[in-house]
Amino acid sequence: MKNFKDMLHKYAKLAVDIGVNIQKNQTLVINSPIECAEFTRLMAESAYKSGAKNVEVMWHDESLALIKYLNAPEESFKEFPEWQIKRLNDLVEKNAAFISIAASNPDLLKEADPNKIAISNKTKSTALKDYSNHIMKNDVAWCVISVPTKAWSKKVFSNSDENEAVEKLWNNIFKIVRADRDDPIKAWEKHIENNDKKVDFLNNHRFKNLHYKSKDTDLTIELPKDHIWCGCGEYNKAGTYFVANIPTEEVFTLPLKNGVNGKVKSTKPLNFNGNLINDFTLTFKDGKVIDFSCSEGYESLKKLLQMDEGSSYLGEVALVPFDSPISNSNIIFYNTLFDENASCHLAFGKAYSSCLKNNDKLTLEETKKLGANDSLVHVDFMVGSPDLDIIGETHSGEKIQVFKNGNWAF
Amino acid sequence: MKNFKDMLHKYAKLAVDIGVNIQKNQTLVINSPIECAEFTRLMAESAYKSGAKNVEVMWHDESLALIKYLNAPEESFKEFPEWQIKRLNDLVEKNAAFISIAASNPDLLKEADPNKIAISNKTKSTALKDYSNHIMKNDVAWCVISVPTKAWSKKVFSNSDENEAVEKLWNNIFKIVRADRDDPIKAWEKHIENNDKKVDFLNNHRFKNLHYKSKDTDLTIELPKDHIWCGCGEYNKAGTYFVANIPTEEVFTLPLKNGVNGKVKSTKPLNFNGNLINDFTLTFKDGKVIDFSCSEGYESLKKLLQMDEGSSYLGEVALVPFDSPISNSNIIFYNTLFDENASCHLAFGKAYSSCLKNNDKLTLEETKKLGANDSLVHVDFMVGSPDLDIIGETHSGEKIQVFKNGNWAF
Repeated sequence: MKNFKDMLHKYAKLAVDIGVNIQKNQTLVINSPIECAEFTRLMAESAYKSGAKNVEVMWHDESLALIKYLNAPEESFKEFPEWQIKRLNDLVEKNAAFISIAASNPDLLKEADPNKIAISNKTKSTALKDYSNHIMKNDVAWCVISVPTKAWSKKVFSNSDENEAVEKLWNNIFKIVRADRDDPIKAWEKHIENNDKKVDFLNNHRFKNLHYKSKDTDLTIELPKDHIWCGCGEYNKAGTYFVANIPTEEVFTLPLKNGVNGKVKSTKPLNFNGNLINDFTLTFKDGKVIDFSCSEGYESLKKLLQMDEGSSYLGEVALVPFDSPISNSNIIFYNTLFDENASCHLAFGKAYSSCLKNNDKLTLEETKKLGANDSLVHVDFMVGSPDLDIIGETHSGEKIQVFKNGNWAF
Repeated sequence: MKNFKDMLHKYAKLAVDIGVNIQKNQTLVINSPIECAEFTRLMAESAYKSGAKNVEVMWHDESLALIKYLNAPEESFKEFPEWQIKRLNDLVEKNAAFISIAASNPDLLKEADPNKIAISNKTKSTALKDYSNHIMKNDVAWCVISVPTKAWSKKVFSNSDENEAVEKLWNNIFKIVRADRDDPIKAWEKHIENNDKKVDFLNNHRFKNLHYKSKDTDLTIELPKDHIWCGCGEYNKAGTYFVANIPTEEVFTLPLKNGVNGKVKSTKPLNFNGNLINDFTLTFKDGKVIDFSCSEGYESLKKLLQMDEGSSYLGEVALVPFDSPISNSNIIFYNTLFDENASCHLAFGKAYSSCLKNNDKLTLEETKKLGANDSLVHVDFMVGSPDLDIIGETHSGEKIQVFKNGNWAF
């Protein structure tokens, strides 16, 4: 193994310089579990060295969240502090950059009351709707990364002891995010270039719909006329290029809200706010989930679909080859950031309006008219498999193979 | 040693039930270093069990603060986020209770630029002036406690290794806060009763001034006509009895701002925002420090005295017998919460206006007219020694010995 500390530093620099591409005198916000303090401090130091004026860390502790679920009365989940909303809006206003560490324990909320969880999620999503809008419109630079925690590592490597599990997860993450390369920044520049070729192919064809076909799936997804496929990086309002996910292997756009029909089966477990949903099949009619079943997490899935009108419609279509580096690691990460980049996926809920032409000139209502779904949530789920074929149909009726046996067909 | 976990739980309960005396449906705010997460979670659980509606933790990390001092530009210390002010004011407004964990590394800021530290302190004190006012007027219930951190423990027990030092500090704290007793709550009730006897004695005599005399000290402190001596506990605006410091061994009031004359020498090091100030002698004329010297931390002391007009005047007079339990431990804690409760002390800066009669009906201006000092800071320093005598003079000219050889004379 290469020097651990060296890779840590490279990874921290990657998040700051490639992820949010920090600019001189900018404020960096880091959303960090307290358990990830060591890595968060490295990112802070790296950001100051790259010219950041200030680094503001929003610490949180999932053990404390669990204590609240197990002990606090239901009413307390209906309140969301005003200052928190003000804090985020002020930070967006002054063009801060946002790094979030996704590292939750997939089994955290097993014993918690699903009702309290649903109330809490709805309260939070409602309160932070404006902030989410800014993020999903790419008004500011943002990036999601992951850092191993003990509980998460043990879930992924359940046969190892805690320390060994953490070390294994670190080593896998280093590989996947290319922090093990001599020059990770250069490696990312090359990766972005390759990914852009797929984006260009799809944008040149401007498909009317995609037809997904595998043993358990037969689904047609129409795309809005003005859809745009996006790849690794995008530009924020200030014109800064940033990479919103590290790792990212996907090419994605938005579906036409009412244009999804057929049946699709999930191919990886979904960790939804501390609860696992497994082996679920969804039936769509005119965009809406009209039937579903699963082997685990039925109540959680039901609550998710019922959260609001938009949560039972799709908001994202993402293509990832089955032979991606993450997929080839053969590890189930129980963490959307990794699992989504190992598999073709879809998302319940809000669409990225940045995937519509001239998005910066459109109001929310106008994006809806063009077919973009709106919701308090955006939750990815995996549908990629080694037998998945995807055929794209153009507006002139031409059919072109996009995926064959789980991988890019071209 | 008694069961460690058992004492931890008792200490957590003490902070919640005796410290802030949490009430049904109240919000508890805990100001906690991320390193103290385990104990903070215990307090949270204890608070919910005692009926709290919500527990909000304000996490902070001193390593991150140091990274900022070492890397951020000076301008960034002139800014204080609006949301933070709103957060605290909203919490005061809804009568939240506030527990703070004081556990800083006394040597943290040794390498930091004193200028940045001074700017940062002034920015913070100015921004939080309203909040500090509410706290010092006892509008809400608040309590300061301490929890060992590695760096602090190593400073106190420098000859032990890190784990041993932490364990030693825990054991000392458990003893000092009475968490090692079978029934710590009952022990505290008795302690409060004893302390109240001293308070009554002093309030019955209504001294005009106190004269401090020891080998290095010869100081006269006049007291405002309307002063009140306070002890362990006080009542907040809502009428809840709370204990603002755990431990507390002191009886305290405020001095007449312009009525301090003579010379006083410190008897313990002062940890001021991450810098130690040692062996300092202050000369007062009509309340103001007109001359000072010290063996360590001259610049820090100078910056403190120059912070604003009030920081070179006194705001507190506190009496603690030299034979107090903390003092008898013969440990220098490098932490004001412990060191101040092992020694008679004074404080630079803002007076507790709760030590004036009818304080709840007085405006800030009226308290000033009555002799209360005002400042952005309130910084305790220790002056108790085994040869300290204190003579109280009543308005009728009667002289009564209050302290003899460092201890209560009655």
